[in-house]
Amino acid sequence: MKKIGRFHVLTDTLLQTRFSHLELAELAIAGGADAIQFRQKAGPSREMIKVAGQLKDLCQKSGVTFIVNDRLDWTLAIQSEGIHLGQEDFPIPLARKILGEKVLIGGSAGTLEEARKCLRDGADYIGFGPVFPTTSKADAAPASGLDLLERVVGEISLPIIAIGGLTPENIPRVMQTGVHGVAVISAVCCQKDPREAARNLRRMLESGGHV
Amino acid sequence: MKKIGRFHVLTDTLLQTRFSHLELAELAIAGGADAIQFRQKAGPSREMIKVAGQLKDLCQKSGVTFIVNDRLDWTLAIQSEGIHLGQEDFPIPLARKILGEKVLIGGSAGTLEEARKCLRDGADYIGFGPVFPTTSKADAAPASGLDLLERVVGEISLPIIAIGGLTPENIPRVMQTGVHGVAVISAVCCQKDPREAARNLRRMLESGGHV
Repeated sequence: MKKIGRFHVLTDTLLQTRFSHLELAELAIAGGADAIQFRQKAGPSREMIKVAGQLKDLCQKSGVTFIVNDRLDWTLAIQSEGIHLGQEDFPIPLARKILGEKVLIGGSAGTLEEARKCLRDGADYIGFGPVFPTTSKADAAPASGLDLLERVVGEISLPIIAIGGLTPENIPRVMQTGVHGVAVISAVCCQKDPREAARNLRRMLESGGHV
Repeated sequence: MKKIGRFHVLTDTLLQTRFSHLELAELAIAGGADAIQFRQKAGPSREMIKVAGQLKDLCQKSGVTFIVNDRLDWTLAIQSEGIHLGQEDFPIPLARKILGEKVLIGGSAGTLEEARKCLRDGADYIGFGPVFPTTSKADAAPASGLDLLERVVGEISLPIIAIGGLTPENIPRVMQTGVHGVAVISAVCCQKDPREAARNLRRMLESGGHV
């Protein structure tokens, strides 16, 4: 079975420059992340494939799911077990056709209609959000809020990963909607101590809203 | 047999913004280009795949070779007949493995050693340069000059496409080295009348150095 993970950390080197992708992944995993998403939209392929390969090795060694954001070419190059495709990224049906059934494919959705489309397109899970206002994405859609998130969880028969503006404070309420898990960028990558930040988030996630 | 083309025009929307990729391709083909290379390093995949598809259709209709620069994911998405891979781009041997023997794969080289490696890696042709100083690439290597180009043509048993700083004035000398053809960016895309510029270059290329 495809292991999706409940606590996804997206590595980012645009919002912060103190840590490399690999360093962030190491810290996040040490803090309890069970899925790492390599989010790097551009850059020289040969170098990025090397970075992606290092991340994949680290994740394999740690028993953590590894997901490449957007780049189907890099996914193929390192034979990544997973790829995450946003609304503007490589089309999901075509990705499924090229990558086959075994590869974990995640889709992004911010509305019920987009979530339905991810399901129809053959995604294995949905990253739904932004649930709360976020500063991690310049072009982020308006926040969906918890009510819509709960509706999506109720209607769509796929694991839902909440994303967007998540903090240790709001994660308990997010988990109460019945989501499979959460994904964060800034809440780990941009914190003073990313490992400690991840540990905190993980603890709140584990409490399942009962703290 | 794979049709490589002798007069490659790389469409560019960073150096100039007056024309879209499709408009540039139309003008270049009208002026005599027989290969169009879609050079777009970043941007939303879903939109870029659409643009690449339109370019491919135009080229097919015009009997012109179509080549995607760098992006193996977009190449797969539109089933492009060709891809060009620079030194920092997706690795050629891996691209060959994924795309198969039928797809035209070009490699970039700026030294004899790089050209030898392209040959070993299984490229179908080599884009060699910059032959002359160029302003089209911010990170361009030092110009190779005509002597090295001639040596590469003599030693490497692949079609060589000269690139970098080419103008109607120097193309006759370039053709005398025995190259298969030439590739240009600014010399078409950044000229006042791209079609007329292409026509001029084509005429000089056809003269084969005898004008």
